Amino acid sequence: MSTLSDTLRVAVIGAGYWGPNLARNFAASPDWDLVAICDRDRARAEALARNTGGPAIAESVDELLDSYDLDAVAIATPARTHHSIALAAIAAGRHVLVEKPLAHSTAAGREMVEAARAAGRTLMADHTYCYTPAVLKIRDLIDAGELGDILYVDSVRINLGLVQPDVDVFWDLAPHDLSILDFVLPGGLNPHSVLAEGADPLGAGKSCLGYLSVPLPGGALAHIHVNWLSPTKIRRMVIGGSRTTLVWDDLNPQQRLSIFDRGVDLGLQEMMLGDAAERKGAAISYRLGDTWSPALAEVEPLGLMVGQFASSIRSGEASPTDGEAALRVLSVLEAASGSLAAGGPVRPFEAAREEVR
Amino acid sequence: MSTLSDTLRVAVIGAGYWGPNLARNFAASPDWDLVAICDRDRARAEALARNTGGPAIAESVDELLDSYDLDAVAIATPARTHHSIALAAIAAGRHVLVEKPLAHSTAAGREMVEAARAAGRTLMADHTYCYTPAVLKIRDLIDAGELGDILYVDSVRINLGLVQPDVDVFWDLAPHDLSILDFVLPGGLNPHSVLAEGADPLGAGKSCLGYLSVPLPGGALAHIHVNWLSPTKIRRMVIGGSRTTLVWDDLNPQQRLSIFDRGVDLGLQEMMLGDAAERKGAAISYRLGDTWSPALAEVEPLGLMVGQFASSIRSGEASPTDGEAALRVLSVLEAASGSLAAGGPVRPFEAAREEVR
Amino acid sequence: MSTLSDTLRVAVIGAGYWGPNLARNFAASPDWDLVAICDRDRARAEALARNTGGPAIAESVDELLDSYDLDAVAIATPARTHHSIALAAIAAGRHVLVEKPLAHSTAAGREMVEAARAAGRTLMADHTYCYTPAVLKIRDLIDAGELGDILYVDSVRINLGLVQPDVDVFWDLAPHDLSILDFVLPGGLNPHSVLAEGADPLGAGKSCLGYLSVPLPGGALAHIHVNWLSPTKIRRMVIGGSRTTLVWDDLNPQQRLSIFDRGVDLGLQEMMLGDAAERKGAAISYRLGDTWSPALAEVEPLGLMVGQFASSIRSGEASPTDGEAALRVLSVLEAASGSLAAGGPVRPFEAAREEVR
Amino acid sequence: MSTLSDTLRVAVIGAGYWGPNLARNFAASPDWDLVAICDRDRARAEALARNTGGPAIAESVDELLDSYDLDAVAIATPARTHHSIALAAIAAGRHVLVEKPLAHSTAAGREMVEAARAAGRTLMADHTYCYTPAVLKIRDLIDAGELGDILYVDSVRINLGLVQPDVDVFWDLAPHDLSILDFVLPGGLNPHSVLAEGADPLGAGKSCLGYLSVPLPGGALAHIHVNWLSPTKIRRMVIGGSRTTLVWDDLNPQQRLSIFDRGVDLGLQEMMLGDAAERKGAAISYRLGDTWSPALAEVEPLGLMVGQFASSIRSGEASPTDGEAALRVLSVLEAASGSLAAGGPVRPFEAAREEVR
Repeated sequence: MSTLSDTLRVAVIGAGYWGPNLARNFAASPDWDLVAICDRDRARAEALARNTGGPAIAESVDELLDSYDLDAVAIATPARTHHSIALAAIAAGRHVLVEKPLAHSTAAGREMVEAARAAGRTLMADHTYCYTPAVLKIRDLIDAGELGDILYVDSVRINLGLVQPDVDVFWDLAPHDLSILDFVLPGGLNPHSVLAEGADPLGAGKSCLGYLSVPLPGGALAHIHVNWLSPTKIRRMVIGGSRTTLVWDDLNPQQRLSIFDRGVDLGLQEMMLGDAAERKGAAISYRLGDTWSPALAEVEPLGLMVGQFASSIRSGEASPTDGEAALRVLSVLEAASGSLAAGGPVRPFEAAREEVR
Repeated sequence: MSTLSDTLRVAVIGAGYWGPNLARNFAASPDWDLVAICDRDRARAEALARNTGGPAIAESVDELLDSYDLDAVAIATPARTHHSIALAAIAAGRHVLVEKPLAHSTAAGREMVEAARAAGRTLMADHTYCYTPAVLKIRDLIDAGELGDILYVDSVRINLGLVQPDVDVFWDLAPHDLSILDFVLPGGLNPHSVLAEGADPLGAGKSCLGYLSVPLPGGALAHIHVNWLSPTKIRRMVIGGSRTTLVWDDLNPQQRLSIFDRGVDLGLQEMMLGDAAERKGAAISYRLGDTWSPALAEVEPLGLMVGQFASSIRSGEASPTDGEAALRVLSVLEAASGSLAAGGPVRPFEAAREEVR
Repeated sequence: MSTLSDTLRVAVIGAGYWGPNLARNFAASPDWDLVAICDRDRARAEALARNTGGPAIAESVDELLDSYDLDAVAIATPARTHHSIALAAIAAGRHVLVEKPLAHSTAAGREMVEAARAAGRTLMADHTYCYTPAVLKIRDLIDAGELGDILYVDSVRINLGLVQPDVDVFWDLAPHDLSILDFVLPGGLNPHSVLAEGADPLGAGKSCLGYLSVPLPGGALAHIHVNWLSPTKIRRMVIGGSRTTLVWDDLNPQQRLSIFDRGVDLGLQEMMLGDAAERKGAAISYRLGDTWSPALAEVEPLGLMVGQFASSIRSGEASPTDGEAALRVLSVLEAASGSLAAGGPVRPFEAAREEVR
Repeated sequence: MSTLSDTLRVAVIGAGYWGPNLARNFAASPDWDLVAICDRDRARAEALARNTGGPAIAESVDELLDSYDLDAVAIATPARTHHSIALAAIAAGRHVLVEKPLAHSTAAGREMVEAARAAGRTLMADHTYCYTPAVLKIRDLIDAGELGDILYVDSVRINLGLVQPDVDVFWDLAPHDLSILDFVLPGGLNPHSVLAEGADPLGAGKSCLGYLSVPLPGGALAHIHVNWLSPTKIRRMVIGGSRTTLVWDDLNPQQRLSIFDRGVDLGLQEMMLGDAAERKGAAISYRLGDTWSPALAEVEPLGLMVGQFASSIRSGEASPTDGEAALRVLSVLEAASGSLAAGGPVRPFEAAREEVR
């Protein structure tokens, strides 16, 4: 076990698609020693180790947890395996970082959160987007009141994507949008209903494109479009506020964020009318103001994320993407699946749970 | 009354927002004589007449129909008045062109269609977009099989727009998308259910932004996003097909249409598996091909539209945007309003009607 | 003759490409009465008159000047005829507006300027761009010091254009850029040399694409790219300043102007080093700041321009696009032709003239 | 020494900005063994070695050439040192890859080319862009006659760049454009004159922005804009041809290449007129055709480049970016410097040399 001033010792479990990104960032971080790579495919683990300073190789989680003195593990395996690996690591006294989504079900995710809490270990989700300069700036702007009240969120995340064998397009792509919403919205993501519509026009056996609606407080609405079949790639989120509207175009590196000081105003009458019913006839107009695009720091999000993981372990304070946050995301995903099955709105497990309390 | 070889005599009713566009195009058309402008606001009518070759002025529909020898009238007044004006014109033996939407309700629209049919007069809707080079090309491409089967349609029509006093954002903007879909989709628009979600975060008393879903044959889905509160203007429709995908970006005059020869394929296994259930496990991959952007003729859509109106009157053949087409659009709009009220999917009147037959 | 409170009486000479735009704006202006249209092609003049409130028709300049009580004429005929028509109108006591370029040569232009001065008549050039909201804002920003010192100007004005029968690409397109530079640069356009390079790869007998360089005070450089053969249309001017850099993308209506608070700095050392020679080794770095896009008023530039013409006539004060300004533009164009012929830099006539004084 | 079937042994000299890219690609290539990294800064070399499979470290070129059994070296040191290191390596019997530019002068470059030829060693320049899918496709399209005759090339390569201590903006950025032109143009780059204009508005002691013109055969013109002071980043090359025009927008990953089947035509008269002088009056018009964007392979250019280096060594055949090609680029750069000093067009050394022969 390391003291606060020491570097922390970590292993990455899973050397497939995402694991190498985690391994490279742990290897480059002053906070961390990358001690081992764990993968059933030894050759794949070795290839990764060669380019990350030569950590040890383990071929199973048991071997990893038994053989190496670790502070933490980072799990980058298929979602269905997160639950058992995380529980084993927590049982072995390790802090745990998990690739999104936290687990394959809300129930499994809740078990992970509760196990970590009981063991006094840090459980954190790698919601990478929350550590990008753009999303950090969006949160700051909302916190500072620059947008005013949130009126709507419209997010589009579409491109030509491989049809995943184990999950539909909601579980594949929407965790990004949901974790971002949870991160930037005051109060986080805690909707009382979720409505999803999907289409499977190729007969793939699962939704390959879909739309997800999440009501927000005050009559606002968040809407997410995910699509594996789009030949054009779009990654754009619009957050409409009562003061300004923010557009985040993640594929425009020269101007990722734009804040439009434009909008629709209820006119003068509104001020003189107390009654909401009377407001309906009020004059409504729009104003055209300047647009502003803040400079963004050039920071490697995963570098920041592994730094946050270290900092949470050392301080014992929850990170903004801790297990609870990941559970809120999971809960909406699960409700989306329920809505697809039911053909109508569904109340998320977590929201239902809150109510019971 | 004019013979087939003569020009036709028309009056424009309504000199407000849209009427001047109609008047200018009738005035410039070799098919038409613009005989009169009708508006209760005489000064407004006179100002328009000055720039359209000096037609006569009428201050009421009655005066217009009584005083002038007309073949047709074009109605560009508020939607709520379309029904009575059109019925009066048809009763007076005139052919009728109506600005979108055809009427304020499906029932009113059906009366108009039936009155025109009974009187043997042409009733046509000014679904202007259907006469643009882009939409004409889209229809040709779909008809020629270039896109294959339609898998999905995603349409976004958003910008900062005045909150309308009499209609919500669906009735204001979605007629464009719906009339285009009716025009380009094989078989037209005839969905068996409609799902709409709206938001009124400003307390304007009506939806200021919303989403409309319309299932299409074969598991396909059309989805329309309309929004008055967006500081950025987007007019983009994506039509995903089994062979190629078409993107229409109406705000990019240099490349309005792009056809992507890219897509997701069910792999080799599909061919060997007859069973849909077994297909679910089939390998699915994507291919990246060329993109192609067809040259579009530079044509004034309203010029083409008034030419089509003349041609339908002369030949007696229905135009592609005739009363029946407008009624299909109206039926979906009305179902959208029903869905907003019901909080779930609603079957359109026309679809229900078909079933009864 | 009208008093100051009256509207002014104007005729438009030339009903071809540009004349209709002028006629429409005079007809719509509260400052002006459009009294007559003059064109040798009577049918063309009549067609224009029908849509501009029905002014009279004249078939020759002599007929026009003899028959109508006019305050002013607007000349929109081929450049080679500007000189004689303007001199005739001035001789007849009319104020004169001339489409760009002012004349076909500096000598002819100077005669026009001197005739107007001698007769106490207003001579103004229709440098339309100078009346656009974008260019007006650019001038304001430069005047307010927002850009700091001007370091460079790079202007690109290219698209597929008809090869003109009478002028090369410089005379066709560069007047726009040059008149804008004259308008926005402190001190106007008065370079001591001009360098032009052209290419005629189709064998059209004149430059179809070319580059024009104009040194500015303080080591700065303005560079203009004009091209008739480009299938993509670009209208972009970058004005690099020591404080900020402005980018004007005229084909992006959603964000025409962007002001980048970014740039290259000579570092701390510079302040401690007086000697220019020593500065060369100084640390130079760049900073990344915010971007800002000012809202622009929605104004019809030609409406503003005809208003300015009226105002100059009434007040007797020169407009910013008066004959002298147009002469500076003409002088650079003529020097560009000289540079093409000489294969090297050429001193403009006006600059040479200044020196003689 | 390796046989044809063996992997080749290479060392990378210089672990600064570009060396790591070369090292990573050699390490990942099946053609190469990365044997050593050479840098005076041992810590920097070691950091690089850790992420490239652990090659040996040498602190000097002498040590490197003496201690290791190498087939080749790759030089990624400051341009001024290329000449001496390359000559030493060739003298030691190694094949040599050199980062652009080949050398700091044409004379030095020619010595390197001649030393390699005399020793029978492969000398190749890392003109990376020539190995990108976009540039490879451009060359194929030109070779296949898709563009017809080349009429003009306009290249813009601008962004906020550090003012380099040792070179001006031409030597920093234009090698990219020139090496691409040399690669794609039939016959390569061999102009008989070069005209450069630069500006140093910050007083940095060298051009920070500039324009370079290179006449091409048949009246065509290539023009290059390089700029360190532009807050917007543009990487766009337009190649206008008599059949089609190609636009390469390297910052648009979704549509890097567009081929416009549009252009300006000399009309019917041309066919009937043999005489070039008479053609000048011929009708010239433009046609608007489709646009086409070819799919591009996703290939790592440096991977392809190190593969080409191996292949050239094994076959003894020159690569398209061999020393001669690099010398043609160098020759234009040197002429550009001469043109800046002379204030007019300058004949490149290589062109002059050809003439003497």
